[in-house]
Amino acid sequence: MRIPGLIDPHVHMREPGGEHKEDWNTGTSAALAGGVTLVMAMPNTKPPVTDTVTLKAALAAASSKARCDFAGYAGAGAGNTSTVAGLAPYTAGLKMYLDQTFGDLKLNDMGDWLAHFQNWPASSPLCVHAEGPSLATAILLAELTNRPVHLCHISLRSEILLIKAAKQKDIPVTCEVTPHHLFLSQDDIPVIGPGRSEVRPRLAGRADVQALWDNLAYIDCFATDHAPHTLAEKDGENPPPGFPGLESALPLYLTAVAEGRLTLDDILLRCVTNPRRIFHLPEQADTYVEIDPSARWTFSAAHTYTRCDWSPFEGYKMTGRVMAVTLHGKTVYSDGQVLASPGYGRNVRPPLT
Amino acid sequence: MRIPGLIDPHVHMREPGGEHKEDWNTGTSAALAGGVTLVMAMPNTKPPVTDTVTLKAALAAASSKARCDFAGYAGAGAGNTSTVAGLAPYTAGLKMYLDQTFGDLKLNDMGDWLAHFQNWPASSPLCVHAEGPSLATAILLAELTNRPVHLCHISLRSEILLIKAAKQKDIPVTCEVTPHHLFLSQDDIPVIGPGRSEVRPRLAGRADVQALWDNLAYIDCFATDHAPHTLAEKDGENPPPGFPGLESALPLYLTAVAEGRLTLDDILLRCVTNPRRIFHLPEQADTYVEIDPSARWTFSAAHTYTRCDWSPFEGYKMTGRVMAVTLHGKTVYSDGQVLASPGYGRNVRPPLT
Repeated sequence: MRIPGLIDPHVHMREPGGEHKEDWNTGTSAALAGGVTLVMAMPNTKPPVTDTVTLKAALAAASSKARCDFAGYAGAGAGNTSTVAGLAPYTAGLKMYLDQTFGDLKLNDMGDWLAHFQNWPASSPLCVHAEGPSLATAILLAELTNRPVHLCHISLRSEILLIKAAKQKDIPVTCEVTPHHLFLSQDDIPVIGPGRSEVRPRLAGRADVQALWDNLAYIDCFATDHAPHTLAEKDGENPPPGFPGLESALPLYLTAVAEGRLTLDDILLRCVTNPRRIFHLPEQADTYVEIDPSARWTFSAAHTYTRCDWSPFEGYKMTGRVMAVTLHGKTVYSDGQVLASPGYGRNVRPPLT
Repeated sequence: MRIPGLIDPHVHMREPGGEHKEDWNTGTSAALAGGVTLVMAMPNTKPPVTDTVTLKAALAAASSKARCDFAGYAGAGAGNTSTVAGLAPYTAGLKMYLDQTFGDLKLNDMGDWLAHFQNWPASSPLCVHAEGPSLATAILLAELTNRPVHLCHISLRSEILLIKAAKQKDIPVTCEVTPHHLFLSQDDIPVIGPGRSEVRPRLAGRADVQALWDNLAYIDCFATDHAPHTLAEKDGENPPPGFPGLESALPLYLTAVAEGRLTLDDILLRCVTNPRRIFHLPEQADTYVEIDPSARWTFSAAHTYTRCDWSPFEGYKMTGRVMAVTLHGKTVYSDGQVLASPGYGRNVRPPLT
């Protein structure tokens, strides 16, 4: 069965500065293996992407190594409220960190939040990592500044209920949910292990997970928040937050289809149609994914392309598998092998010269 | 010069449970000495006021001891989201603590915030202690649930700018500012002393204070947040947050009038007209305050009625003084003496029987 290439609006390629965890080569290989043909990369690299110089460096690495299409976010900082908007046309959008996670981009002053909402062009996506009251604040700022906001990786019952209420009031909010917040809960932490389970937002309670499923109608996108860290890091002191996700996501969704919890249309709406509209993405011509929706197999990180070599879904019994991927008319993945060369992927935004 | 009796929508009378700091007798004496003829008492007593039994007990203490008119708030808890609304007619309104301060009423779950906003009658005041993102959340909840919210003691530039933007969008928010956030800043902490300076919200930076003055048009009420603690407590370990304020507030405002920073109309709008409208309060018949706007004197806690016996405004040179207060046709304060008997004050809400 043939479906369109998936779009993942939330991945961490770790380049520059974290190439021992992932780089554009391994990260986009993982994307293709997961049926994803377009990734949008977050700016919390080392250094973070906050200006022309750092955006150019990140996009240069992507252009030379990416095996699938891509775009890169700019990061909102306390020091670039009046300048970063100039980068908008060349980016996936602006990413604002309103709560603490991996990296140094957290914005502490609510005055800076308002400034970024006011200054970033309404025609370009604005995404926020925001939990609880910060999430509510982002919704209010969208309303006050008459611009859309995309709410990353929501995880709590109170959050999805707030988003539902905001949508019913026609406030221009969209949101995404990750596979780990849909398919894992706090109850899985003893199995995964405490260090490996570290992720932001944290794994939530079963009632929160159920609320996400109950309110699927208000969830615009599925996004992996693919955030690889090595096993040594995850099992060490101060384990950094984040899970790999690109290679397990579509199999998890297809398994949910096999179980009658999702439909294929549910997936395509949230992995293709909605992200394309929300993030103003071009259609990828001659691009599709061949899936076997009834293939039964066991997921193992040993057979993944991500450099991080582990998964919270290790050993999961899957129903549904990516068999082959065609990107721009060329077979780029088949029979478990990535066939695209580094640099085959295209930047879907205009080049920053 | 004769002005109406002032209304203070935010005082802590400390009874029950904190009578060594203040009680309804000493607290309402301080009110009259400050030209305040109607106080609205916060529910973070010991025990907190969260149900019929505790509200009855608080109002019984007030009825027997208060020397000025009064109303009492109910407190929003995690356990009374579905029941507290029944108390609405008998209260000043509902108080929600979205951030930590003195007492045990902080609400941690944003789901409970939404529930209280949904359940408390829109016809009854709903006040929030909310700082930063919590404040923004309260504004959003007002918009989403179509009900007014009153934002207590705002202190930051980012907060008043957010409130200005919300008002320009016709979101039904009102706000108050305290005299200590108008007349003190972090720069005063060394003079006052670190323990005595503890207050929530904290004293802010000079740019924050200036932003409050610059945006006075968006500040609906002046409220003291009169929050007495004894000097032993303030100078001990773990000093509790809060300042006394009832007796210094009007002199500070009148001094600002003498300095040309405020007009008398500015004061009366924010201490009489607006609180009466926002909190649905009856006019107090035959009630007024005689002030001498040009009297020059030095404020000293040694001559105050509050039991706490200290003030962050100790030694302040004031221009303008309360000479006498008439409440319901009777002189209740004159020549520095409180003349009303305990129990002379009336509950401005219907009795809870």
